[in-house]
Amino acid sequence: MPDSPLQIALVSSLDDHKQHQLRALDPRIDLHDYHEDRDSLITAGRSSRIVHGNVRPHELPHLPNLQWVHATWTGVENLLFPAIIQSDVILTNTRGQVGQPMAEHALAGLLYIARDFPTWTRASANSQWKADQNPTLLANSTVLILGTGAIAAHLVPLLAPFHVTLWGVNSDGRALPAYDRTFTLNSVRPHLGQVDFVVMLLPAGAHTRHAMDRPFMQSLKPGAAVVNLSRGSVIDNLALKDLIDAGHLRAAVLDVTDPEPPPTDYPLFAHPRILLTGHGSWAPPPTDSDLSFEIFTHNLRCFLNNRLADMRNVVNKQAGY
Amino acid sequence: MPDSPLQIALVSSLDDHKQHQLRALDPRIDLHDYHEDRDSLITAGRSSRIVHGNVRPHELPHLPNLQWVHATWTGVENLLFPAIIQSDVILTNTRGQVGQPMAEHALAGLLYIARDFPTWTRASANSQWKADQNPTLLANSTVLILGTGAIAAHLVPLLAPFHVTLWGVNSDGRALPAYDRTFTLNSVRPHLGQVDFVVMLLPAGAHTRHAMDRPFMQSLKPGAAVVNLSRGSVIDNLALKDLIDAGHLRAAVLDVTDPEPPPTDYPLFAHPRILLTGHGSWAPPPTDSDLSFEIFTHNLRCFLNNRLADMRNVVNKQAGY
Repeated sequence: MPDSPLQIALVSSLDDHKQHQLRALDPRIDLHDYHEDRDSLITAGRSSRIVHGNVRPHELPHLPNLQWVHATWTGVENLLFPAIIQSDVILTNTRGQVGQPMAEHALAGLLYIARDFPTWTRASANSQWKADQNPTLLANSTVLILGTGAIAAHLVPLLAPFHVTLWGVNSDGRALPAYDRTFTLNSVRPHLGQVDFVVMLLPAGAHTRHAMDRPFMQSLKPGAAVVNLSRGSVIDNLALKDLIDAGHLRAAVLDVTDPEPPPTDYPLFAHPRILLTGHGSWAPPPTDSDLSFEIFTHNLRCFLNNRLADMRNVVNKQAGY
Repeated sequence: MPDSPLQIALVSSLDDHKQHQLRALDPRIDLHDYHEDRDSLITAGRSSRIVHGNVRPHELPHLPNLQWVHATWTGVENLLFPAIIQSDVILTNTRGQVGQPMAEHALAGLLYIARDFPTWTRASANSQWKADQNPTLLANSTVLILGTGAIAAHLVPLLAPFHVTLWGVNSDGRALPAYDRTFTLNSVRPHLGQVDFVVMLLPAGAHTRHAMDRPFMQSLKPGAAVVNLSRGSVIDNLALKDLIDAGHLRAAVLDVTDPEPPPTDYPLFAHPRILLTGHGSWAPPPTDSDLSFEIFTHNLRCFLNNRLADMRNVVNKQAGY
C-alpha cells in the first residue's frame, strides 16, 4: 500500500460521525461525498479507488483506479453488469442487515395464509362476521425455503417451535444442519408434491430467473402457498396468479414484483388471495447497530493492510451473491 | 358406586366407535343420544347422571340425578348459571384442545400488525404499490398475555425465538417459569406504559368483564396493539376503536365480539386498523387426537371407581374456568 491518499467516493452517504471514524483509521483516507451530486462522480471521481455505494455501468469507464465497491444492502444484481464482472474490482455487500425484519415478514406471510386472514380481511372490510374460512396449521407442515442464506438463517429459528419439516434449496444442494433435506432447484422438483409452503429468498440472476416457473408451481401440493421476499424475477407471477385462480395454489404474499413498480393495471393487484407488500419487508432499518458500516470498516482495515483475503462479504461475481 | 345402570346423556354427539369404547369400559354404562332430539332431554333424561355436552338453565330442574357435565370445549361461561354453580354438579371442560390453532392465530395477529399488513391489505386492494408503511419488529418487544392458561402455554414457545420480554396476568399474579414477570389485572396497571403487544386469552366472567377498559388501554404504550381471541366481553371494543382512531393504539385483531354476532352496523367493521376473524381461531379441529374424548374417558373411569378427586379439567365454578 503506497503512502499516497486513498480516495473513497461516498455514493451512499455516511454521517459526520462515521466519516470521522473512517478518517481516524488512517491519515491516507480521503473521503469525497457524491451523495448529493452524483453526476460529478464521472468528472471528479477519477482517482477513487473505493466506492461506498453502487456504481452504474456508464460510470465505470470514468473510474480507472477503482479497486473495490461496497454495497450497503444485500441483493447486488444491479451491480453485476458485464464490465464489472470482467474487471478485477472487488465487490462486497451487506448480507444479514435485514435478516430479522425479513424473517418476521416471511413468518407473518406464512401465518397470514395459514390462518386464512385473506378471507377475514375481505369479510371485515365487507362488514361480514362469518365467512367460509379454511384455516390450517403451520405446525407439522412442510416448508421449502428457496435460498438458504443469511435471511433464511434468521427465519429458521422462528420456524423451529412449529416442528415443520424444513427443506432448503441452495446452489449445490449441500446439506445444512438446520434443514431436514436440501436440494438444488432441479433436484427438488420430484418432491414438490409434499410442499405446503414455499418461502423465496433467492438472489436475482440468470440462474434464478423464474426459478418458480409454471411447471414448478403446478408440481406443488394442491393448496400450497408462496411467500416471496427476494426479487420479482425469481417467480413467474402471472403463472402464480393463474394457479391461484384455478384453485391449485392457495394464496401468496409477495414483497417484490417484476418490474418494480408494477404497472397500475398489474393483474396481481386487488386480488383476494394475493397480498403485495411494496418491497417493504426490509424495514425498519436497524437502529442499534449498523452492520454495513461494521463490514465496510473491517474491510477497509484489510484493504489498508493488504490483507484482501480477510475481507468479509466478498460477492462471488459469477454466482451473483 | 351401585350396580345400577349409569345413564349418560349425549348432547354433544360421539361417533359409533367412541360409543362402543365407552360401553366397553363398564357394563353399567347406558348411553342415550339426545344429539338430534335435544328437546326430549327434559322428558326422557330424568335418570341421566352424566351429560356429555352442555346443560341449559331450563333443563337443569329436569335432571335431578345429574352429577357431572363434561364440556367438549374450553370457555364454559354459558354453563355457569346460578343454579348449576350452587349445585354439587361437577363441571369438566376441554382445555388445550384448540391450543395450537389459537396460538398460531395469536402469533399471526401479532405479526400481521407488527409487519403493518393492515396498510398493505388496503394498498393491494386499491392497486397501490407503495404505501406509507410503519412496520416494526416483534423481536425484543414487550408482550403482555392476559390469561396464562392452556392456550398461552401453546403460544409461549412460539414467542421464545423472538426474545420478547414476556409478561403474564393471571388471577393471583403467581409467578410462572416462562414469564419474565406476572401480575394481576390490577397490579399490572402501573406498568402498562412498557407494553407493545397485548394478547387476550382470559375466560369470560364477572371478574374479567371489560378487563381491558378505556383507562387500561389509555395506559398502554403509544402504538401498542391488541389481539383478543378469548371472549368479546373481556374488552371494551368501542373504547378500543376510539383509541385506535385517536392514534394512541396501533391496530387490533379480534376473533370475538360482544355480542356475537355483532350487529350489521358494528362500528368495528370495515375499519382499516381492525381485523375481525369471526370466532374462527379455534379451527381446524384436531384430526389425529381427540382431547375431549380422552379427558371424558379418563374422568368416566374415575367416576366409575369413585375416584372423583382424580378427575381432570374440573372447572372451578366460582372462578369460572
